This record gives sequence, C-alpha cells and structure tokens, in this order.
Amino acid sequence: MSKGPGDLMAAEIAEQPEAVARVVADPAPFREACARARGWGARFTIYAARGTSDNAAVYGKYLAAIVGGMPAGMATPSALTLYGADIDFRRCLVIGISQSGQTPDVAGYLGRARTGGAYTVAITNEQESPLAEAADFVLATRAGAEQAVPATKTYTTQLAALAMLWAAWAKREDLIEALQAEVAPAMRKVVGLEENVMGVARRYRSTDRLLATARGFNYATALEAALKLKESCYLSVLAYSAADLMHGPVALAGEDLPALLFAARGPAYQVMVDVAKDLQGRGAELVVVGNGAQALELAGAAIELPEVAEELSPLLAVLPAQLLAYHLALEKGIDPDRPRGLRKVTPTT
Amino acid sequence: MSKGPGDLMAAEIAEQPEAVARVVADPAPFREACARARGWGARFTIYAARGTSDNAAVYGKYLAAIVGGMPAGMATPSALTLYGADIDFRRCLVIGISQSGQTPDVAGYLGRARTGGAYTVAITNEQESPLAEAADFVLATRAGAEQAVPATKTYTTQLAALAMLWAAWAKREDLIEALQAEVAPAMRKVVGLEENVMGVARRYRSTDRLLATARGFNYATALEAALKLKESCYLSVLAYSAADLMHGPVALAGEDLPALLFAARGPAYQVMVDVAKDLQGRGAELVVVGNGAQALELAGAAIELPEVAEELSPLLAVLPAQLLAYHLALEKGIDPDRPRGLRKVTPTT
Repeated sequence: MSKGPGDLMAAEIAEQPEAVARVVADPAPFREACARARGWGARFTIYAARGTSDNAAVYGKYLAAIVGGMPAGMATPSALTLYGADIDFRRCLVIGISQSGQTPDVAGYLGRARTGGAYTVAITNEQESPLAEAADFVLATRAGAEQAVPATKTYTTQLAALAMLWAAWAKREDLIEALQAEVAPAMRKVVGLEENVMGVARRYRSTDRLLATARGFNYATALEAALKLKESCYLSVLAYSAADLMHGPVALAGEDLPALLFAARGPAYQVMVDVAKDLQGRGAELVVVGNGAQALELAGAAIELPEVAEELSPLLAVLPAQLLAYHLALEKGIDPDRPRGLRKVTPTT
Repeated sequence: MSKGPGDLMAAEIAEQPEAVARVVADPAPFREACARARGWGARFTIYAARGTSDNAAVYGKYLAAIVGGMPAGMATPSALTLYGADIDFRRCLVIGISQSGQTPDVAGYLGRARTGGAYTVAITNEQESPLAEAADFVLATRAGAEQAVPATKTYTTQLAALAMLWAAWAKREDLIEALQAEVAPAMRKVVGLEENVMGVARRYRSTDRLLATARGFNYATALEAALKLKESCYLSVLAYSAADLMHGPVALAGEDLPALLFAARGPAYQVMVDVAKDLQGRGAELVVVGNGAQALELAGAAIELPEVAEELSPLLAVLPAQLLAYHLALEKGIDPDRPRGLRKVTPTT
C-alpha cells in the first residue's frame, strides 16, 4: 500500500492509547523488577539513553526522586565508551532505554555497569537486541514496529513503563490504577483535539524559532516537544526547565519568539503561571498545553488537557506536541515520516 | 569611573588566569573536603546548580565519573522545593554550585539533602551566603566581585575548584601540578587570541542562529558557550553533545546554521572530527575551537588552543566563547554587561 507524507507518523500517533494500555495491563513484570533491584540493595538510579529515549529518561529521573524517593541521574556514556573510566557501580540501579535496543553506547554502558556491580534493567521495544541482552531484566514497551523516523508511540510506552516501575517501587497502587483505568481514555480525548492543534500549526507555519518550557514532570515534555519539532520541522526550538530559563536564556524572549508552555495542575503549576506572565510581559505569544484557568487564560492558543494525576500528565501533554510537529511539517511541505539526513537507528559510540 | 558598554565583562574575562591561579594555589581545602566525604562513605555525587554554575556542574559530572570513578548526576531541585519529595540521601555527596550562593532552590536543595543524610559541599564565590551556610564544607572560588551580568571568571574558577577536588579525590598529582603550573599561562595565551575571535564576530554579526557541540569534558564548554551567546547576544544557540546531536537535531544542520565545535585532542577527539565532517557535508560553516590538524583543517574559522591535559581543556576552551559573546554583542549594538531583562542573581524556587 503506498503511503502519503506523514501517514506513518499519523497512524502511530493515533495508536498510542492502545499501545499504552498494553504496557500497563500487567503490573507483574514491574513488581518483579523492583523486587530484584531492592534485593540488590539499589540506592541510586542512573539512566542511559539517547534522543527521544533520553527525554523519557528525564521523566524517569523525576519519578525516581519524587515517587520513588531515590536519587537519580543521567549517565555519561562517553565516560565508559570513549574514556574507559573505571566506575564503581555497586548499589546502582542502571536503566537503559532504547526503542531499538541497538544504540551501541547505551547497550555498552549497561553491559559495563553490570560487570561493575550495578543491577541493570532495559526498557526497549525489541526484546531481542543488544540492550536486552546486556541487561539483568527486560521491560518490554510492546508498541509494535515503529516506522516513522520521529518516535511517538515508543516514547509514550517508555513513559508508561517508567511510571509503572516507580509506582510499583513506591507501592503507589493509586497510580497503577490510574495508569490502567484513566490514562488511555484521556489520551484518546487528547488525540481528538487534532483540529485545535491544526489551527496552531497554521498560525505558526512561517515560524522558524520557538521556545519550549515546563517544570517538574513535564520538563521531559518540553524537551520531547522540542526534539519532535526540530527533527520533523527543522525548527530552532530552545527548550528549558522554567527555572533554567530564568537564569539567562529568558533574555531571548520577545515578540519574535513564540513560547510553548506545558502547565498541568500540580505542585509546579503556579511557577508555570508566573513564567507565562513574565514571557507575556516581554511580548511573547504563548501556546499553552495544560489545564486550569490561570494558565489557559494567558494563552494566545490553548490546548486543554483532561485532568489525571499530575505525575502521569506527561503521557497526555506530549500528544499535542506530536500532532503539532506532524501538522507543521505538512504545512511546511516536509514529509515528517522521513526527515532529511536522519535514520531510525543512530549508531553513536 | 564611568564605564563603556562591555567594559566590565572585558575586564573580568582578562582577570581569569589570575583568578584561577588563586583557586588552585593551595590544594589543602580540596584534600580536606575529599577526606571528609570519603569518611562519610560517599558513593554517588549529585550536583545542584543553575545557569552558568549548572554548566560547571556538567564538567564536574564528567570529572566525577572519569577521574573519580564515581557515578554522578544532576539534582532535580524542584523534586524537593516544589514536590516536597522524601529522598534517601545516605551515601550521597551533594555539591551545590552558585556564584552568589543566593539561589534559593540550590541552597534549599543542599540543606534538605544534608538533613536527608548527604555530605554537602558548597562551591561559591560568597563564603557568607545561604548556600555556604547550608553546607558541611565550603570551597571558595576567590574570583573577586563579578559585576557584568554574564558570568565569566566565576565560571572558570568553579571549573578550577572542581578539577582540584576530583584530582585530589583520585590522588592525581599530575593534574594538580598541571593546574598549578600550566593552566594559568595557557589561559593567558588564549585570552591573547582576541584579534582572531574579533574576526569571527565580524563574520557572524548578522547571524541569529548557531549550533554548539562537543563531547566528553568539553560538552560543558558547548553548553556554556551557548548560554553566553544567548544571554549576551540574544542568539538562538542549539547546544548538544555530539552524540545527542546525531540522534535527531542534526536534521537542522545546513548552510543557514553555522556550527561552533570544541575539539581538544583526547579520547573524544576522533568523534568530533567525524561530526565536523558530517556537518560540513550538510553545508554548515564550521568555527572550531581546539587543537590538532584534523579538526582545525575542517574549519572555516579556527581558534587554536594550547595543549594541556584534556581533562583540563575546558578551562581554556571556554575563553574564545566568552570573547566571542563579548565582541558579537558589541557588533550587534548590545551592552553585554547588562543584557535586557536579566539580573545578576535569579531567585528561582
């Protein structure tokens, strides 16, 4: 069957509620991974990932700290793969995330961490891959084959796996129930906001720069929105946590730099409302993805999300950004399924 | 005495070799901090910082892993300050970095980490500040008062303090000797390349987008170069590790996006040469800060650094970026001492 521009990406965006529902249906593997990591004496979590999976890892870092009470950080793969560092990994839980499981530096980092004393978990869509083989335990994302170059359903299924893992770690049955009962239907509602997003894409069809910002759990969403818009639409997107934004880059804000803000109700909400007001005061047009009248009323364009537990809101908030990347690419005459100069698997070492 | 545009920043850039020499003159406090952290049983390092200090922390993260053999990550201050997470910090060394010591979320994170079981170290230019008061141990950056809004000498003195700390931790006397004998004279040579940098500033006076990239120790340099150019010249700078760049954002590369590459000879060098060739193949103009014929020969404009141990090269490599931010701001008619809408201390919570 021949495909038009972006048909693969559009289909994969639409599949996400069902793919996420498959990942969260059975909590058993997540509870098992937690039991083993706990038995190992894990006290510190390190995520190894690249690209879209690295943005999922940022969400995982917030989950580890806030839901799991465990300090967490991101790996520096080059420390092992290029510099040959001798790192003491005892007491570390090292989680490698990769759609394909093929990224050599991520699989290499996990393997080296395992021999260095870490307990290692792979989150991947390919259960037979170098990453899966390197790990003590594999959590499958069950997204099905992803064919468009910009990752969509593998990202949200990674988020779902991470949320299940940390909910299981913290014995947060409320989150597991919400993941099973509320998230997929809420995602379906957000995918249904496509007309709304198309209006935003038309409005910004000539834009070549954008600011993306959020704080807390949705910082990952701002990073992933930026990556989608860069790789699918060649847009220069500057992505910051709202706190880092205020430490310098806010000097760029103004009429010539529209801002995409993610603001879901929760502990980071008021900070985002304040940042929205600050940016508005500097003349920036605001696109707000979130909920709550305070943030939505400040927006030139608002995309209202259904309410779920704020810890799970990144599963919803990224969907309008994916849809925006898709529609903006079409507006700009780009085939988002095959951006220039990118392949589906990037073999960095 | 009245000052012209950028006079403060220019003076502070020039002061750096002497400021760094002051920080590294006495290894005793660094050895003492290591002895105490080791006595505490520290096994993981977490850095808490914002803005320029956060870029210094990225360098510190590579030092911890590669020189110190200790896993390290960056804090998520909002986990504590907004979400009130209950994190188990036992066995953690938490290092807060702040020029002013005033940033509430960094000082707050350190205080909470200390009561949660961490050993805490402050690296700050203000020994009487909330951050210093929150810490078990204070390492002073001795840069003198910094008056220009874009941080320069407080950044390089933070790098020097971090290099001394991890050299002391790993008993790398070769690095301590190089820090004391070689780095300040080499920094003086690089500051002397100002004419060369002015040529680059003139060439890119009308540019409003730039890509900045490096890998390994100088990833921090790419991030800090990007921040200086954003806050001083309102340039949209996309900064990536060379590996993350290849996982998507490289789609942006082309004739309309000049690239600033940092490539010092060492384990990450060959990767940077390959990235330079890839970017050149996509039509991008290259400005290369580094050494070695392979990288410099690919450059449209090259700024050649003296050779020091690659672990210490970020102390040199950032200087051309600071000078470029200064001269490009003047070319654009901006006073880099006082960028629009920024203050010297940013009170994020």
